[in-house]
Amino acid sequence: MVIVGVIGSSLASGKPYDDAMEVGRLAAERGATVLTGGLGGVMEAACKGAKEAGGQTIGILPGSDRHDENPYVDIPIVTGLNHARNIIVVRTSDVLIAVGGEYGTLSEIAFAMKLRKPIVSLGSWDVGEGMRKASNPAEAVDTAFDLIK
Amino acid sequence: MVIVGVIGSSLASGKPYDDAMEVGRLAAERGATVLTGGLGGVMEAACKGAKEAGGQTIGILPGSDRHDENPYVDIPIVTGLNHARNIIVVRTSDVLIAVGGEYGTLSEIAFAMKLRKPIVSLGSWDVGEGMRKASNPAEAVDTAFDLIK
Amino acid sequence: MVIVGVIGSSLASGKPYDDAMEVGRLAAERGATVLTGGLGGVMEAACKGAKEAGGQTIGILPGSDRHDENPYVDIPIVTGLNHARNIIVVRTSDVLIAVGGEYGTLSEIAFAMKLRKPIVSLGSWDVGEGMRKASNPAEAVDTAFDLIK
Amino acid sequence: MVIVGVIGSSLASGKPYDDAMEVGRLAAERGATVLTGGLGGVMEAACKGAKEAGGQTIGILPGSDRHDENPYVDIPIVTGLNHARNIIVVRTSDVLIAVGGEYGTLSEIAFAMKLRKPIVSLGSWDVGEGMRKASNPAEAVDTAFDLIK
Repeated sequence: MVIVGVIGSSLASGKPYDDAMEVGRLAAERGATVLTGGLGGVMEAACKGAKEAGGQTIGILPGSDRHDENPYVDIPIVTGLNHARNIIVVRTSDVLIAVGGEYGTLSEIAFAMKLRKPIVSLGSWDVGEGMRKASNPAEAVDTAFDLIK
Repeated sequence: MVIVGVIGSSLASGKPYDDAMEVGRLAAERGATVLTGGLGGVMEAACKGAKEAGGQTIGILPGSDRHDENPYVDIPIVTGLNHARNIIVVRTSDVLIAVGGEYGTLSEIAFAMKLRKPIVSLGSWDVGEGMRKASNPAEAVDTAFDLIK
Repeated sequence: MVIVGVIGSSLASGKPYDDAMEVGRLAAERGATVLTGGLGGVMEAACKGAKEAGGQTIGILPGSDRHDENPYVDIPIVTGLNHARNIIVVRTSDVLIAVGGEYGTLSEIAFAMKLRKPIVSLGSWDVGEGMRKASNPAEAVDTAFDLIK
Repeated sequence: MVIVGVIGSSLASGKPYDDAMEVGRLAAERGATVLTGGLGGVMEAACKGAKEAGGQTIGILPGSDRHDENPYVDIPIVTGLNHARNIIVVRTSDVLIAVGGEYGTLSEIAFAMKLRKPIVSLGSWDVGEGMRKASNPAEAVDTAFDLIK
């Protein structure tokens, strides 16, 4: 099983939301399981896209119970660790795609770079050469799969 | 989705191993996803039983990469948190079944009791009235499903 | 520096509270730093006793900010990890003394046994031969220092 | 008590090492406790500087026992959480000073920004307006104390 982590802001709407939904859909169409932090915004969009393509989704939740996951999470992992759960998102993914994103996303990008985990930016933070950039969802998913071949 | 956590020693063999395999099989036959700490012994047995019944399995791994999960884990969650991952096993499960077990298992039982998470003992630690006891795998699984009805 | 962890219920009052205060005082008189989970009850009492003896205290807090520590904590460590912080209490202590205690305490005792960390029970859970028992605070502290000599 | 967290690469030498030592010294002279991730490089330098000024130091260790802390850590907190301990460094500090730094440092900066924790950059990552910049250790420490006044 390939796990594609999709990271980004819980408050995203508009273009990053649409992009994340397309990323989730394309990743699921290729047979990947889509993993997110389980909340709203980009996380919700990626899960929604994956479900529309018949895929499976995992949410690594920061809270202490199941109330806060988005409705497109199949497998909610309840950590109770607050932001410390970000490292689990990174470790569990085979490859990550960052769609936009605020500081929480930046912490995950930093952990990915630290752990040499493949990661693709779609309009996200620019933190140096180790992070591949994509200009649209299809290119992001293509690049992600190339990186783990 | 109902998630049944099965906890017990990574070194178990013989009767607790066989019991855990039967618990995993029976839980999966009822449609539950079986969650464990992802390692050997009782954790492996429960996953193996679940897979034989066509079920899905989750492993909440203590280590920093995927090398240590047992071969019957479908969804490995890589925490890198060592024993601190035990609380995630408890929080993510709807109900827990403890099969035998050493001190790691006791920590999970204690967390379950603390969080008022339903838990059934099959030859495990006795920590007071809040923990239901079962004398065989079928009774353990029946009791577990009763507790979350 | 010797770090003595004192664990027990956040709701303790009466005898366990008094016992924990005496344990904290005696440990500090011997030059130990007293470490607790930073909250009320036994944790507060141990810190209070240690401060009365001129000692230093550490609190490993479960919450996300400093609002919940008791007033006798010198060094508040803010984990934001909820109950997962219990393992840090155990790992950081050279030896532990359990005074009474509910299920949270039991999780810490279990971790201590798992990690072969020396631990003394003063009216706490009985989990087997590896845990030394004491019948009063002075004996508990004497035993704790003997165990790490 | 004011806790000043000093973050940066465990491999730093030369100028960032010297800068971190000066930051630690100046913070301790103002009465602050210096907190780091407990390892080498910038973390070691900050602790060393603080100790030379008679200050107290805390190390939030990623490993499972005490073997990896630098010799200038007074209070080693043993988390066993690997990189997840970075969030504890951020939460426990009243203010942070980032001296140079690699991706681990970036994860801490990101968490600080996320939690709106005051943070000063001394030749570190540039992540936006919320992070104050300093051009030398004295300015960094002055700015840090200004931010928490």
